[in-house]
Amino acid sequence: MAIAKVSIIPVGTGSPSLSQHIARAVKVLRQEKNLKYELTSMGTIIEGDVDSILSAIKRMHQAALSEGVMRVVTTIEIDDRQDKPSTMHSKVDSVMKRLQG
Amino acid sequence: MAIAKVSIIPVGTGSPSLSQHIARAVKVLRQEKNLKYELTSMGTIIEGDVDSILSAIKRMHQAALSEGVMRVVTTIEIDDRQDKPSTMHSKVDSVMKRLQG
Amino acid sequence: MAIAKVSIIPVGTGSPSLSQHIARAVKVLRQEKNLKYELTSMGTIIEGDVDSILSAIKRMHQAALSEGVMRVVTTIEIDDRQDKPSTMHSKVDSVMKRLQG
Amino acid sequence: MAIAKVSIIPVGTGSPSLSQHIARAVKVLRQEKNLKYELTSMGTIIEGDVDSILSAIKRMHQAALSEGVMRVVTTIEIDDRQDKPSTMHSKVDSVMKRLQG
Repeated sequence: MAIAKVSIIPVGTGSPSLSQHIARAVKVLRQEKNLKYELTSMGTIIEGDVDSILSAIKRMHQAALSEGVMRVVTTIEIDDRQDKPSTMHSKVDSVMKRLQG
Repeated sequence: MAIAKVSIIPVGTGSPSLSQHIARAVKVLRQEKNLKYELTSMGTIIEGDVDSILSAIKRMHQAALSEGVMRVVTTIEIDDRQDKPSTMHSKVDSVMKRLQG
Repeated sequence: MAIAKVSIIPVGTGSPSLSQHIARAVKVLRQEKNLKYELTSMGTIIEGDVDSILSAIKRMHQAALSEGVMRVVTTIEIDDRQDKPSTMHSKVDSVMKRLQG
Repeated sequence: MAIAKVSIIPVGTGSPSLSQHIARAVKVLRQEKNLKYELTSMGTIIEGDVDSILSAIKRMHQAALSEGVMRVVTTIEIDDRQDKPSTMHSKVDSVMKRLQG
């Protein structure tokens, strides 16, 4: 299981507001049964296996490119840890414990 | 006011666990009176003016480099919007409303 | 055709040097007939269709995870433009012309 | 000495072409005596000390925000290695040697 963050930036849309395009991309994730996700102000965090994550992000990217958007810059970070289970929750929790300790 | 995301990756530490190094960097933010921040599993989100954000991130980066860490890769994304006020909260809220609409 | 940049960071390797791991990942690209690529000091730039790029990056990521590396952070940026052909060469060229103009 | 990569994306400009905005940002670097830089198709690579790099990137970001651009997303990666000198040239060279070996 890996954790990823994706941010999708449509270019040349004529308006500084991106929420309608982001929403169109995020809707793709609703159909993904084997992925968890969380919206943040700087992108969407996705938890699952790397294959499913990249496949979903490809569809998100394509969804953003539709409806008159001619250029999209998509940024992806994948954190893939094999030595022990790692989740969105456990990663934040580990740092929080260190901060309190 | 801008919103940024920073993720700090120490390299060559000998262990896949990074939480102690992340915590050392995040502690820097506690002293920043004019910045809001939020921990996520894929980095720390910071809200404030660009000058204060970059200055804080520089100190976070230096904190991560201390205590025997010889190499750090720091990734920063800054979303700076001038046409209207934008916050960590308002950005997520705009997308949520589109998803519900 | 899209252009992407991938950087692969093995975590917890015990040495600040990453070149052997990067080389293992880049070797994957040699076998990709329909992708062009270019090494830079901050990642590898790849030109091709989005499907082939993401599929190659998945294999690069997996190659980096082998040989005792327990955690890898892979960062991908995809610039996908539909209104006109865009290549690694043409993008740099457009900016150079503006700088000289 | 560190090596960084910066990419600057103006949002809502009305055209998928970004070269004029990128050029305006890159011009800032010409005035930086203590920084080396290199244009790539996926951003500008900068070599120098972290303070000078971040200070220059702040000015690049501000340059991109001028002339009617209301929103800019700037992505920065900083690779800062303390155990030995690292340059744009030496980093690529290390990987090339591994690929040939």
